[in-house]
Amino acid sequence: MHGLMQDWPLLCHKILDHAARQHGQREIVSRSVEGSIVRTTYADARTRALKVAQRLQRDGYGDGDRIATLAWNTARHLEAWYGIMGIGAIYHTLNPRLFPDQIAWIMNHAEDKALFVDLTFVPLAEKIAPLVPTLKKVIVFTDKAHMPETSLPGAIAYEEWLAEADGDFTWVSLDETAACGMCYTSGTTGDPKGVVYSHRSNVLHAMIACMPDAMGISARDTILPVVPMFHANAWGLAQSAPMVGAKLVMPGGKMDGESIYELLDTEKVTFTAAVPTVWLMLLQFLESTGKKLPHLKKVVIGGSACPRAMTEKFERDFDVEVIHAWGMTEMSPLGTLATIKPEYADLKGDKLLDVKQTQGHPPFGVEMKVTDDENKAHPWDGKTFGRLKVRGPAVARAYYGGAGEEQFDEEGWFDTGDVAHIDKNGYMQITDRAKDVIKSGGEWISTIDLENLAVGHPDVAEAAVIGVTHPKWDERPLLVVVRKPGKEPTKEELLGFMEGKVAKWWMPDDVAFVDEIPHTATGKIQKMTLRDQFRDYRFPAA
Amino acid sequence: MHGLMQDWPLLCHKILDHAARQHGQREIVSRSVEGSIVRTTYADARTRALKVAQRLQRDGYGDGDRIATLAWNTARHLEAWYGIMGIGAIYHTLNPRLFPDQIAWIMNHAEDKALFVDLTFVPLAEKIAPLVPTLKKVIVFTDKAHMPETSLPGAIAYEEWLAEADGDFTWVSLDETAACGMCYTSGTTGDPKGVVYSHRSNVLHAMIACMPDAMGISARDTILPVVPMFHANAWGLAQSAPMVGAKLVMPGGKMDGESIYELLDTEKVTFTAAVPTVWLMLLQFLESTGKKLPHLKKVVIGGSACPRAMTEKFERDFDVEVIHAWGMTEMSPLGTLATIKPEYADLKGDKLLDVKQTQGHPPFGVEMKVTDDENKAHPWDGKTFGRLKVRGPAVARAYYGGAGEEQFDEEGWFDTGDVAHIDKNGYMQITDRAKDVIKSGGEWISTIDLENLAVGHPDVAEAAVIGVTHPKWDERPLLVVVRKPGKEPTKEELLGFMEGKVAKWWMPDDVAFVDEIPHTATGKIQKMTLRDQFRDYRFPAA
Repeated sequence: MHGLMQDWPLLCHKILDHAARQHGQREIVSRSVEGSIVRTTYADARTRALKVAQRLQRDGYGDGDRIATLAWNTARHLEAWYGIMGIGAIYHTLNPRLFPDQIAWIMNHAEDKALFVDLTFVPLAEKIAPLVPTLKKVIVFTDKAHMPETSLPGAIAYEEWLAEADGDFTWVSLDETAACGMCYTSGTTGDPKGVVYSHRSNVLHAMIACMPDAMGISARDTILPVVPMFHANAWGLAQSAPMVGAKLVMPGGKMDGESIYELLDTEKVTFTAAVPTVWLMLLQFLESTGKKLPHLKKVVIGGSACPRAMTEKFERDFDVEVIHAWGMTEMSPLGTLATIKPEYADLKGDKLLDVKQTQGHPPFGVEMKVTDDENKAHPWDGKTFGRLKVRGPAVARAYYGGAGEEQFDEEGWFDTGDVAHIDKNGYMQITDRAKDVIKSGGEWISTIDLENLAVGHPDVAEAAVIGVTHPKWDERPLLVVVRKPGKEPTKEELLGFMEGKVAKWWMPDDVAFVDEIPHTATGKIQKMTLRDQFRDYRFPAA
Repeated sequence: MHGLMQDWPLLCHKILDHAARQHGQREIVSRSVEGSIVRTTYADARTRALKVAQRLQRDGYGDGDRIATLAWNTARHLEAWYGIMGIGAIYHTLNPRLFPDQIAWIMNHAEDKALFVDLTFVPLAEKIAPLVPTLKKVIVFTDKAHMPETSLPGAIAYEEWLAEADGDFTWVSLDETAACGMCYTSGTTGDPKGVVYSHRSNVLHAMIACMPDAMGISARDTILPVVPMFHANAWGLAQSAPMVGAKLVMPGGKMDGESIYELLDTEKVTFTAAVPTVWLMLLQFLESTGKKLPHLKKVVIGGSACPRAMTEKFERDFDVEVIHAWGMTEMSPLGTLATIKPEYADLKGDKLLDVKQTQGHPPFGVEMKVTDDENKAHPWDGKTFGRLKVRGPAVARAYYGGAGEEQFDEEGWFDTGDVAHIDKNGYMQITDRAKDVIKSGGEWISTIDLENLAVGHPDVAEAAVIGVTHPKWDERPLLVVVRKPGKEPTKEELLGFMEGKVAKWWMPDDVAFVDEIPHTATGKIQKMTLRDQFRDYRFPAA
C-alpha cells in the first residue's frame, strides 16, 4: 500500500523558487571579477536564472547536456548553475588550478558542449578550447564593455547574451533522479573521475547541511562561501544558503586575508567555510593588523585536516566557533562534522580540542563504517582503524563512464579510500589514506600520525612517511624529511624526539633527508611519486 | 540522463537506526502509565522496535496492514510505531478524546487488524472492540503483573508478547512511497477523513522540522512532546527527535501543570511543544507556585491560535522563546512557523509580538498561496485574505478511500479550508475558516477577527460570529455572546465597544445572548450547529 502524499519531486530549482518567494529581498553580494561590489537579491537571481535557462534552450541545449563553468564564486556563477539545472542540463565545474591538459581531458571525458567562464580564466580557456572539439559556445561572465578580444569559439558576453531573454520561462519538468551537476575528483593517482549529482541528491544534501548539528544555518545568517563553487560542489552552500534564505556574500577571485577580512567586516558575515590555507592567510592578516571578527560566529573548516592551533586561535582569540568537517566530492560532499554531542558538552580546553580535531560525526543521511580488508566491520572504540566506507542518498554509486568500480560494493557502500577509526560516540578520525597506510606484519601503521609527530620537531619543515618493502614485515615506515633552512637535525635526534610518543613497532626504521617533497596541483603530498623515488631504497638492517 | 547517486530510500526505520548508532545512549524518559518514571535509550528502543516487528510478522501482519494505537506518549508507543513501520505495516493513531462510536467508525473505515492500547484506555477499547469486526488482536502496553482482566479479543500484555522475540530481525525492504502511518482528521463537519503518510513524507517532514528556522532542534536538546502522538502525527517529533538524537521526555497521560512542570524541571527539558490549553495549565501552576523555567529555551505552540498574552508571559516572565506554528493533519503536520526573519529582527515589544502572533512562514518544502473562489492568487500584502492552499512532499494528495476530492486540484494544491492573508515577507495569518467566513456584498468578513474583538470586552465569557442570510448583502454577521456570570452587557454596549476597531461594514448587525455555545469533543466551536440554531433568525432591520 502506498502513502497518499503528494508527488513533489526534489528539484534544485524549487530551492531558488522558495528563496525568491520567501526571502526575495535577501541580498547576494558579490566581489565581481571586474572589481566592484555588486548587489543583487534572491528574487533577481531567480529571474536571471530563468533567463539563463531560456537562453540556453534557445541555443539548443537541453536534457543531460554538460555545460561547463570555469569561474569564481559570484552571483552570476550561481544564477548560471540554476539556469543550467532548470532545463535539465548539468553544470560541470572545472577547477582552474589544474593544468590545461588535465582540464581538457576532463572536458573531453564529459563532452562539455558550452562553457561559462570568468574574465580571469579567458586566457586559460583559450589554451583549452582547441583541445575540446565538442565545445562550441563560450559565455564570458561579463558585460559588453568588459568583453575582451578572444579566440574562444562562439564567445559572447554573458550580459549581452542574457539581455536577449525576458525570463518568461517555466523550469522544465524533471524526474528527481535526473542529473544536475558534475564534478571530477582531482585524485593523487590515475585519471580524474566524474561524480554526477542528481537533483534529489543535491536537495537532500542541502537539507542535511542546514540541520543544527551539521552546518546549522538560518535565514538570519550571512554566509561567505570562500570554498569555491568548483571545489566539491561548493560544499553544498549554493543550495543550502538559498534553501534557508541566508544572505550570501560571494568573494569572487580574491581569497587573500585582507580581501576576505574586508567582506567579513563590511557585510557582517556570520558564517563562512573554506580549506585551512585560506584561514591561515586570514589569521596572518588579523595578527599583523590587530583586527577582530566581531560579527563572525562560525567557521567550517575542511578539505584537509584543520591544524589544532588554527581551531584554538579562532575560538580563543576571536570567539569564533570552529566546525571541523570532512567530506568528499563523491559525497556531495558532506560526510561528518565535529559539532558537539551532549557526551562531550562538558569538556573544556585540551579535551574539548581533542574532540574538535576529529573529523566529527555524520548527520542523518550518512551511514559510516570502518572495516578490514575483508570487509569485516571494526568496533567503534576510537582506536581500531580500517577502511572508511559510507552510504547515503547523496553518496555516489558510480563514476561517470564506469571508472573506479572497485570502490563500490553490492550493498551500496562506497570505499572512501581513507583509513579511519570511530569512537563510541560516533566521532570519526582519519588516520591515513588506504593506499598510504603501512601494513607491517599484518598490522596497520598510520603514516599521517607519524608525519604529524615528526613535523612537531622544531627543525623539520615538512615530513612524509611511506611504506618500504621489508623482507620480514612486508612493509616498514620510512620517514622522509625536509629540514628547515640552516637546520641540520640528525636521524637519531628525530627518532629520539618521536620515541615514546607512538607504539614502538610504529617507529620509522630509517630517516631520509630530501630537499623537496612532491605535491599535486592542489597541494597534497604525492606519496606515489615519493614511493617511486624510493623504489630502490633498502633499510640499513634489511 | 540520470544522476549517479545512491538509491537510498527515505525510510522511517533508518531514522531509528541512525539514532541507535550515533546517539545510542541518549535517553528516552517516560512517565509510564503504571506511574513510575522509566528510562530507556535509542539503542534499547531500536532493539525493542525490532522485536515488535519480528513479533508482528510472526503473528501474521505485514505489508499495508493497519495497526491501531490508542495510547499516550511513552517509549513503548514510540517503539511500537517503528516496529509497525519496520514490517511495512501502518501505525494508525486513534484519538481517545473522540466518542467510542466515532473511534469505531474510524477503525472500521481503516479496517484496523490489531490494536496497541494503554491501560488507561482498556475500558474504552472494550466498548469499541465489539463494533470492529476486523480487530482480532489487542496488545496492552504493560507487563504481565499489571495486565487487567479484559474482554478484548486476543489480548496480551506487551512485555509478555515482546519477550517471545529476540530482535534478530532485519527491517523489510520497502519503496519509500510505501504507506507507514495514518491519522484521521477530526473535522467539525462530516465524517472523519484518513490521511496516509508515506515513509518518504515522514522522513522529509522530519528533516524540514529540524531546520534552524523551523523547530531548530539538535542533539543537545531535551525534548518534551506534550502534543500527543495521536494528535496530527505528533507534530513530527517522533521522527525529528531521533533524527537529531535529542533526548526525549515522554509525559504519559499526565498533562496537568504540575506534572508537566515536574518533567521540565527534573529532566532539564530545553524544547517542548503543545496546544495552548496545556500551556494555560502550566502557566497557572507556575504563577500559583512562583516556580521558574530555568532550563526551557523554546516552546512551539500550535493546534489552535496562541493567545498573545501567552506568548508575552512565556517570553517576558520566563525567558522562553515562543514559536507560534500552524499545520494540519494533512500536512504531516507542519505548515508555517513564526520564527524571525532578518526583516523583523530589529523589532521589539508590541511590534515583535505582532509578528510572533502570525502563523509564520513556511520552510522549504511547503508552498503556499491565497486565492479567491476562482483560484486567482491574491497579492502578499498582509491584508487581502482568501483561501489558503498548500503544496509539498509532506502534504496529502488524497484522503483514504477517496473522500474530500474537492480539496485537491489538478496542480496538486490542497485547499486547507482556512482563510488567510500573507504579508510581503511571507508571514501567513489565518483570519477564518472558509466555511465560516461571511460573504457580504461580494466582500469577505473574518468571523475570528470579530470574535477576538468581542471577547476583549470585560463582561464577555465567550463569543462566536456567524453569517446570517440577508436580503440585500447575501450574508451579514451576527454576534453570539455568552455573558460572564452576574454580568449583563447590552447589545449597544458591546457594539459600542467594537466600533471604530474594525471597518464599519464589518460590524455585526445584531447581538444574540445565549447560555452556551456548542463545542466539538476537541474544544472547537461548532459553528455549523450554531448556524443551525439560528437558521430561522432574521435581522431586526431586514
